[in-house]
Amino acid sequence: MADQTLPAGLSGHAVVSGSSANLGPGFDSMGLALGISDEISVQTTESGLSIDVEGEGAGEVPATWDHLVVRAIKRGLAAHGLRVDGLNVNCRNTIPHSRGLGSSAAAVVGGLGIANALAEQVDCAPLGIAELVQLSAEFEGHPDNAAAAVMGGAVVSWTETSEPGAAAQYRAAGLRLHPDIRLFVAIPQFRSSTAETRGLLPEQVSHLDARFNIARASLLVLALTERPDLLMVATEDLLHQGQRAPAMPASAEYLRLLRRCGIAAVISGAGPTVLGFGQDASLPEEAIGFAAEHGFTVGEINVGRGLVWRAGAMAAD
Amino acid sequence: MADQTLPAGLSGHAVVSGSSANLGPGFDSMGLALGISDEISVQTTESGLSIDVEGEGAGEVPATWDHLVVRAIKRGLAAHGLRVDGLNVNCRNTIPHSRGLGSSAAAVVGGLGIANALAEQVDCAPLGIAELVQLSAEFEGHPDNAAAAVMGGAVVSWTETSEPGAAAQYRAAGLRLHPDIRLFVAIPQFRSSTAETRGLLPEQVSHLDARFNIARASLLVLALTERPDLLMVATEDLLHQGQRAPAMPASAEYLRLLRRCGIAAVISGAGPTVLGFGQDASLPEEAIGFAAEHGFTVGEINVGRGLVWRAGAMAAD
Repeated sequence: MADQTLPAGLSGHAVVSGSSANLGPGFDSMGLALGISDEISVQTTESGLSIDVEGEGAGEVPATWDHLVVRAIKRGLAAHGLRVDGLNVNCRNTIPHSRGLGSSAAAVVGGLGIANALAEQVDCAPLGIAELVQLSAEFEGHPDNAAAAVMGGAVVSWTETSEPGAAAQYRAAGLRLHPDIRLFVAIPQFRSSTAETRGLLPEQVSHLDARFNIARASLLVLALTERPDLLMVATEDLLHQGQRAPAMPASAEYLRLLRRCGIAAVISGAGPTVLGFGQDASLPEEAIGFAAEHGFTVGEINVGRGLVWRAGAMAAD
Repeated sequence: MADQTLPAGLSGHAVVSGSSANLGPGFDSMGLALGISDEISVQTTESGLSIDVEGEGAGEVPATWDHLVVRAIKRGLAAHGLRVDGLNVNCRNTIPHSRGLGSSAAAVVGGLGIANALAEQVDCAPLGIAELVQLSAEFEGHPDNAAAAVMGGAVVSWTETSEPGAAAQYRAAGLRLHPDIRLFVAIPQFRSSTAETRGLLPEQVSHLDARFNIARASLLVLALTERPDLLMVATEDLLHQGQRAPAMPASAEYLRLLRRCGIAAVISGAGPTVLGFGQDASLPEEAIGFAAEHGFTVGEINVGRGLVWRAGAMAAD
């Protein structure tokens, strides 16, 4: 059956959270949505493409049909058996790019949300959580940020392959975060490339180090949900943070500083942002001073919500 | 201060559960107490040692001060600043030996329980959970079985070393098992040696395989506590079960059979016992048939309780 082309004049809106992946020991698995979001608004047109980006990433990416948000919208529409001839896209981005804050996953998940918003207007049932996780993780190759952006809150994600060479199934389960946990992010001015920092990871690790992370990753689920007193030990890692530290020495130093202050700090995704789990409302003076000195924007941040979409235009400010 | 010698004529009693370690992905970390127990009863005497073992292990180990139960009693007493000149020890064992059911950990934890029971009678405060986990894990080198035997139920355990070469601190946190989970054990007649099966483990593993287990181990905590529907994927492992399968081919085959039947089966500790997590009360006929044919004793088993000790003799049957 040929795809149905959407009529011109439909509009849709989506809000999607940034996220941290890994959370220390949970490499490529744990994810946490953060209270920092991008908004996407689109109108279908007869033909052509315009993309207007405000905020983070403005002017960085050419306005073509290969733009990540647009590719995700098209992918989502295709899953509904839909296509579009023209689009006006407006992005208001607040998630910094290339800092380990899940901006790419947010672009993809937001685009899929737009597809749902448009599809509902021609009486297609929206893609559910599982489909959104699957489609968004296919763009990324792993479901940690994508699942957090879809579901909000904290997630454990994983990849299943029924047999070697089969298509990967990306899945995730949500965690109920303990209400006493307070989150801090410290965002450096410099950028990091996930592709480059992945190159710093060894292909082999010792069985002992693997066991170390396994115990911490298990404990992290307990710490995040019921035992925040265990967050310090539950965020220890031997499999990626140390290996990548040379690419982000200030972040590595800040991580150690925060941990000395009793804040369970980890590298957010591939870095260089540092994420901290604390139980007090404020950061120690030493931590604020280091951030100022090294150009980190630091502060408390809320847990992020799951993807929201609706038909209609972006609300006026 | 010299240790105080306990007077003759004190008696103490302890009941301690067997346990499964690893539970699939959680190598050297996850533990689960099982509803199968050893009972130890002692009386202090003026001098000498007698050890009477009924049931599992009877006649296997010489009755010397090097007997594991006796060493643990002495270690527990020493932690209280106590010693003993003579002991009569009676063990009624139902935990099979060398099957991956934590009989060694039970012997140690039970001995420490006896030490608590005796120490209370000379007005020493009993060792608490954390001390019991630490002392028992020191015997084993890892806290998974030991913590499960001390605490009962399911545990996440881990090892901390403050600096290289420092003494290991063994710790554990309990999990609230979901009430819908039903446990099955299949105990083969043949024995396995943990020392030997450890030799089958590679020193290095791929980063990819480590990540695989990390995601499953995280998920296992969620599955055991809130999402038993995820137990099948949450018990997958790439780091030890496959490597050890050649040492226990029937167990490996039974594990696959149970998983095909929808029972989340794992190797219990270093094997060869197979542990299964199910949600139905009974095993499929195919699983019962295989067990009969291969000499496995198979059936449902309760979750085990934590260590119990008291002053006084073993209750009469």
